[in-house]
Amino acid sequence: MSKRVLCLLFPGFEEIEAIAPIDLLRRAGVEVKVVSLTSDRKVTGRSNVTVQAEATLAEVAANDFDLLLLPGGPGVKNLRGGGRPAQLARAYAQAGKLVGAICAAPLVLADAGLLAGKRFTAHFSAHGELPQALAGEKVVEDGNIITSRGAGTAVDFGLALVRRLCGEEVAQQVAKAIMLG
Amino acid sequence: MSKRVLCLLFPGFEEIEAIAPIDLLRRAGVEVKVVSLTSDRKVTGRSNVTVQAEATLAEVAANDFDLLLLPGGPGVKNLRGGGRPAQLARAYAQAGKLVGAICAAPLVLADAGLLAGKRFTAHFSAHGELPQALAGEKVVEDGNIITSRGAGTAVDFGLALVRRLCGEEVAQQVAKAIMLG
Repeated sequence: MSKRVLCLLFPGFEEIEAIAPIDLLRRAGVEVKVVSLTSDRKVTGRSNVTVQAEATLAEVAANDFDLLLLPGGPGVKNLRGGGRPAQLARAYAQAGKLVGAICAAPLVLADAGLLAGKRFTAHFSAHGELPQALAGEKVVEDGNIITSRGAGTAVDFGLALVRRLCGEEVAQQVAKAIMLG
Repeated sequence: MSKRVLCLLFPGFEEIEAIAPIDLLRRAGVEVKVVSLTSDRKVTGRSNVTVQAEATLAEVAANDFDLLLLPGGPGVKNLRGGGRPAQLARAYAQAGKLVGAICAAPLVLADAGLLAGKRFTAHFSAHGELPQALAGEKVVEDGNIITSRGAGTAVDFGLALVRRLCGEEVAQQVAKAIMLG
């Protein structure tokens, strides 16, 4: 059975950080459910690109996936506000499932208590709250937590998620198809 | 006055190849008009992400921009079909304006007669028709034609467009903001 990913979109999300992992995971044959955090399926990112989510978070069985994917962007304040994404991230980690967060989204993992004693990275705008972030790393994997630092590393992040879910060989095939190397 | 870019979306476009340049150009302060080639403003890409275009091509003054941006993807056959994008590309080139094409979209530039004697790159899937493509280059600029090879080089492509429209300093600021380096 193919692996399943839940990706949360929210107003002010960073478009490249969402679209690159979604695209690369789908190229790898992973089922990616793109859901809106709010009740509106149309979600507009930080650079004013509007993406149509397939469902709202309230409409899906949110714990029923193999990986929780959190893009970043200035809208991460919306992810932190209600507490539901942090709660979900905690449930995923406690179930031994994967959590991926990029840019400012590792702040949600900190809210969930998942970063204590872990190696991780994050966008420099989050370093005030996350002084332990490894700014020199494009992607950091520590146990079931996978983090990346920004839109400039979103393709690396997406490929790391593909590698974890589908293995090295599939990740290399995807990298070749997009002419990364 | 800020620079203006016209970006065409079409069914089966490659999402990263469209979104990365749009996002990076807007971060640089460029006005990017995202238009649908068809009469439907909702456009679904090759990885099943649906993006809301701001207008249809028929609704805008299509010659009235500084740069024409053509993303790639398997849907490039739709770009080639009607002939209008090739006609637009030719008009841009003849007016001394910029044309950017990535992945399979340089095929449209070939249809427009713009690649003869030029240095350019393209996705390997287009090399049968474009044997002169420089597969080893991430981005190639020759005069007013800027080409790139695929989703894995879309961020480099977007930054090259920022550099051409806004200068090296702005491109470096954007690269730093997305933590590319």
